[in-house]
Amino acid sequence: MKRLVLLRHGESVWNKENRFTGWTDVDLTEKGVQEALSAGEQLKKAGFRFGKAYTSYLKRAIKTLNNVLDVMDLDWIPVEKDWRLNEKHYGMLQGLNKAETAAKYGDEQVLIWRRSFDVPPAPLAKDDERSPLIDPRYAAIDPKDLPLTESLKDTIHRLLPYWNETIFPTLKECDDVIVTAHGNSLRSIIKELKGISDKDIISLNLPTAIPYVFEFDDNLKLQKDYFLGDPEVIKKLMEAVANQAKGV
Amino acid sequence: MKRLVLLRHGESVWNKENRFTGWTDVDLTEKGVQEALSAGEQLKKAGFRFGKAYTSYLKRAIKTLNNVLDVMDLDWIPVEKDWRLNEKHYGMLQGLNKAETAAKYGDEQVLIWRRSFDVPPAPLAKDDERSPLIDPRYAAIDPKDLPLTESLKDTIHRLLPYWNETIFPTLKECDDVIVTAHGNSLRSIIKELKGISDKDIISLNLPTAIPYVFEFDDNLKLQKDYFLGDPEVIKKLMEAVANQAKGV
Repeated sequence: MKRLVLLRHGESVWNKENRFTGWTDVDLTEKGVQEALSAGEQLKKAGFRFGKAYTSYLKRAIKTLNNVLDVMDLDWIPVEKDWRLNEKHYGMLQGLNKAETAAKYGDEQVLIWRRSFDVPPAPLAKDDERSPLIDPRYAAIDPKDLPLTESLKDTIHRLLPYWNETIFPTLKECDDVIVTAHGNSLRSIIKELKGISDKDIISLNLPTAIPYVFEFDDNLKLQKDYFLGDPEVIKKLMEAVANQAKGV
Repeated sequence: MKRLVLLRHGESVWNKENRFTGWTDVDLTEKGVQEALSAGEQLKKAGFRFGKAYTSYLKRAIKTLNNVLDVMDLDWIPVEKDWRLNEKHYGMLQGLNKAETAAKYGDEQVLIWRRSFDVPPAPLAKDDERSPLIDPRYAAIDPKDLPLTESLKDTIHRLLPYWNETIFPTLKECDDVIVTAHGNSLRSIIKELKGISDKDIISLNLPTAIPYVFEFDDNLKLQKDYFLGDPEVIKKLMEAVANQAKGV
């Protein structure tokens, strides 16, 4: 049996402040660190022994992973970081909170951005201080691949080649693989794995730092998927994430 | 200008208890974490911008590196972990403290092991619970390459090919590279870089978590080397490491 674990990062400073984060590199809160440690404990207890880990270029995902691996005594395993696992780029919304966004763009426009599969928020200017085009960490990446805003469709488009060519084939060599990333980059993977429609994927709300396990047979055919932990607790967490989004 | 930084991990639980650690995977103390954060602050202040990092399979080195990179806002850079950067393997001494070692092997024998370049401590049995041959993290490595004990000479022998073929050439692509490792794996690299004799390398005592900087010209010819920080403080730290060893 082969097992893939998808893990959304623990609570970040901007999750707490209810700001659009996207590619902004905000840190975990202390609660976020504790969530990561708790996810690590659960995975250890469930007997996972990861051979390889993938994460994004963003520290809230990287530090979630580091904490998980440390609890599991797996600090030493190879970790590959890639910008294609980054959160969806929120364009001009990055840094704004709920109230600021509604004031600037109007409730109706924001609702379209939140609920839409393929309408991206207004893009950043190329020389905006938030632009990946002037961020040294993306200097090695072809500028034409770097987004100034993204719809979920765009996120899927940049992530899927990396998923198909690099992450998924790792299961041929390792029995257990973990991906620690973000709400929308993980939605992209889940959509692909489960064949979820464009419309339905928008309503999938991943709670932070709850391991989502996918089991495959030796031919990498998906057998089942489940969240690790108490089903009642997980249900409440998913509802909370859904409600958080409703206001905006 | 190209810059290489060698960094010995912060204080570990067994540094504090004065036990032989070697390949035992002991954690950092809280002081060790603070030392790592402080090294990160210094490196940031000095304008280092690492393009790649190397570390061992041992969590005291990995977590030192993670803390350094986090302070520097460089969590995202590629990190390669390799067992060849592990500490010298201390064979049967691993886990013993000063008093236990003297009682078991006699003061004279222990002095030979500590002061010698090429006499290894008594080896572990192949099926000793401390043996790398039965540790799953080394399962992918050819058993004939895995040590049951090592002299400094042996450590150099296993590390140098990796240093010459992988780590050092990274300076062709990155201006700044960091290696976070251990007293004896770093001695091996310093010996090679500075052409230090077998006899003299034994007396080089690296303090924990003080960045040791090597500057190269564009042809990778060594220009100068220095510790980052207050020279008086560093001198005292190096004397303390030397005295710590003298008792054994």
